Amino acid sequence: MYTINENLKETTCPVHLLKEHFGETVQIHGSIYKIRKMRGFAFVLLRTRKGIIQCVYGESAEFSLEELTEEACVIFTAKVISEERAKAGFELHLISLRVLSTPAAPSPIVINNKQVDTSLENLLSYRPITLRNEKERAIFRIQEGLCQGFRNFLIKQHFTEIHTPKIVAAGAEGGANIFSLKYFGKDAYLAQSPQFYKQCMVGVFERVFEIAPVFRAEKHDTSRHLNEYTSVDFEMGYLNDFTELMQTELGMIFSALAHLKESYGQELSLLEVKLPEVTEIPVIGFHEAKDLIADTYGRKITDYEDFEPEEEKLLSEIMLKETGSDFVFVTHYPASKRPFYAMEAEKTVGGVPVTLSFDLLFRGLEVTTGGQRIHDYEQQLAKMQALGMHTELFESYLMAHKYGLPPHGGIGLGLERFTARLLGFENVRRAALFPRDIHRVMP
Amino acid sequence: MYTINENLKETTCPVHLLKEHFGETVQIHGSIYKIRKMRGFAFVLLRTRKGIIQCVYGESAEFSLEELTEEACVIFTAKVISEERAKAGFELHLISLRVLSTPAAPSPIVINNKQVDTSLENLLSYRPITLRNEKERAIFRIQEGLCQGFRNFLIKQHFTEIHTPKIVAAGAEGGANIFSLKYFGKDAYLAQSPQFYKQCMVGVFERVFEIAPVFRAEKHDTSRHLNEYTSVDFEMGYLNDFTELMQTELGMIFSALAHLKESYGQELSLLEVKLPEVTEIPVIGFHEAKDLIADTYGRKITDYEDFEPEEEKLLSEIMLKETGSDFVFVTHYPASKRPFYAMEAEKTVGGVPVTLSFDLLFRGLEVTTGGQRIHDYEQQLAKMQALGMHTELFESYLMAHKYGLPPHGGIGLGLERFTARLLGFENVRRAALFPRDIHRVMP
Repeated sequence: MYTINENLKETTCPVHLLKEHFGETVQIHGSIYKIRKMRGFAFVLLRTRKGIIQCVYGESAEFSLEELTEEACVIFTAKVISEERAKAGFELHLISLRVLSTPAAPSPIVINNKQVDTSLENLLSYRPITLRNEKERAIFRIQEGLCQGFRNFLIKQHFTEIHTPKIVAAGAEGGANIFSLKYFGKDAYLAQSPQFYKQCMVGVFERVFEIAPVFRAEKHDTSRHLNEYTSVDFEMGYLNDFTELMQTELGMIFSALAHLKESYGQELSLLEVKLPEVTEIPVIGFHEAKDLIADTYGRKITDYEDFEPEEEKLLSEIMLKETGSDFVFVTHYPASKRPFYAMEAEKTVGGVPVTLSFDLLFRGLEVTTGGQRIHDYEQQLAKMQALGMHTELFESYLMAHKYGLPPHGGIGLGLERFTARLLGFENVRRAALFPRDIHRVMP
Repeated sequence: MYTINENLKETTCPVHLLKEHFGETVQIHGSIYKIRKMRGFAFVLLRTRKGIIQCVYGESAEFSLEELTEEACVIFTAKVISEERAKAGFELHLISLRVLSTPAAPSPIVINNKQVDTSLENLLSYRPITLRNEKERAIFRIQEGLCQGFRNFLIKQHFTEIHTPKIVAAGAEGGANIFSLKYFGKDAYLAQSPQFYKQCMVGVFERVFEIAPVFRAEKHDTSRHLNEYTSVDFEMGYLNDFTELMQTELGMIFSALAHLKESYGQELSLLEVKLPEVTEIPVIGFHEAKDLIADTYGRKITDYEDFEPEEEKLLSEIMLKETGSDFVFVTHYPASKRPFYAMEAEKTVGGVPVTLSFDLLFRGLEVTTGGQRIHDYEQQLAKMQALGMHTELFESYLMAHKYGLPPHGGIGLGLERFTARLLGFENVRRAALFPRDIHRVMP
């Protein structure tokens, strides 16, 4: 028997501390990203957990260059030399080498160029290695930064983080887009959203949030759909007005962007990301937006209940031109297209019942759906009955309403979609570590 | 069209600011937790997002006490009066009332006593309302605090947060304990752990973590098992020695406990939690521990490959007595009981092949499994073949090994188990918001 104490120490120099060791000899670990032979010396690029470090194999090296292979994991002993021409402001002059592991084969895809030059199909099929590319992995640092930013804002605004079940007895969004499974002989489903649970939890903590996977069995094979994605959900009670939800989301987004700006400069510059700069977001009613698009582009409206993807793009174009904003909130969607728990507005729009709901479009794509919910038990029950729903299946959900819920609402934001729009990707799959679509369940 | 800006403001007084308004009249919102009629006045307990506030219905009230019902959501106008006898150090003298919502029926279970006095079955079946009890909800504040604490530590230690898929093509832990589903005509499974993905990601970021649901189709109906739980996973590369994993976990746990102490005092005192105070954790080998338990309690060893639950309890008892520690690491489990990716130790123990692995026991229960993994491709392949596994099913997992992985390892910690042990619950279900077991998929 012995004891472990909390004195955690690294035996090699942490990469962010290298700058404090100019002129000194250090040990550093990493993976050989690229070997570039020059006349009489070689550049060896070392991939570390944060950034690629330029090393020089030259006269001081006490080992043979042939001992190095790309993707080998090594510990170098090296001298830190200030060097203005290196991106990091310094480089490492290699002295000695300890090889920790060697790959069994060279990578079948070139991953150490500026970008991985292959099809999306290959990029995804070889994810465990293509993610090692400097730019590919930077995408997921940015995504981490967004999550941290969202979470920090919500915690500061007194939201409580919750963990709700993903195996459920009934779908929140209804319809056929739900995965089913056998659960010890019973029928169960994969949660399409934490909707029911977060509403229940408003009765407990007033404000809650969850960042977790959701599952949609949608058969769409488009650049915008994933069958499993990470949903950033919040739900808040004691709303005075449903517009407070948009304000909260705006605060959340701008906090996250500020966090990126502060802590992820290296990744932003690597991916040449232009962060949206606005502090206001324009808001437009669904019907007004429909008319505006039709008028501006001389289009005929064919779907009066929802946007076509093309219309979302056009609306974003108009908004960018007119207000300079990369975002736009569209409110008051027709009740016919919103779920049974959506609160309806008191007034119709031209005779059409509309909801106190909204979508957030970001550079032409819906990234959020939100809205106020029905909190009154009788009202919710009546609406479900009117829709022909089996209310007995929702007994435990309706328990929250029956025994008292404040006026409330919330949003769900698709993390991968948001990341993809921020980074300018046409296909949302590029912003999912290991995407799931109708053809893909591997890797 | 109009614009939304980031000036988020609350129209009522945030509860944590009440103390700054002694002698003033404020508006405050919340849910009526309890009405206690006294002679000539009444105490009205208001449940807010943070704590229960004592209000006094007396002469200053401009409304009738009959207008208040328990679990109604209200906005009170009230005067903040310093009052030493009140738990918060002040109370609110009610003036006027705005009712936001009224429950449709009184709660079928008494939730506003010190604790909810009912069966575990009822406690869970009525979760949406039983969680409104002050003590019940405090459990999940503590759980939130643990998550925050774990995460903050890992971020500070340069771990990158990742989101890995929960619908997978193969199970990480093997065996029959896996939920299957139809995925667009193909067979797929629910992830038993993020094991394969986090190992792949070590090749990308060196250090990664994820806090997310995992799914185990175990048929055990015990106080220790959940079929869906929240797993706190980390995985780190460039290990010198597998004991670094234990050190990292120790740092993570003690950071989280320190975070609780600093920010969750109210909940800790409500639940009368005694936080473990140690800064060291004893470490004992599996075989040594088996012998120690057998010797100390005069028990006969029947299972030489694993602990019986009773043995885990007894070992914790011994360790507490001998070292004062609520935790104990048990290392070097027999290879026969560990997964195919577990790294074996160079030496056997009495002829038995053992692994560089460990469990962490906390007050008599296993809360973590961890260990070093095989990083060499040929070695991993050989081991899988020796076990008769279909290696072609693991091609994308083995891609990480094939093209280079550093020595690495990691852990998975069960958030609900950890919470339950910390709070002294015999049944882990009490530490899951909406637990899933072989009988329960609702609420």
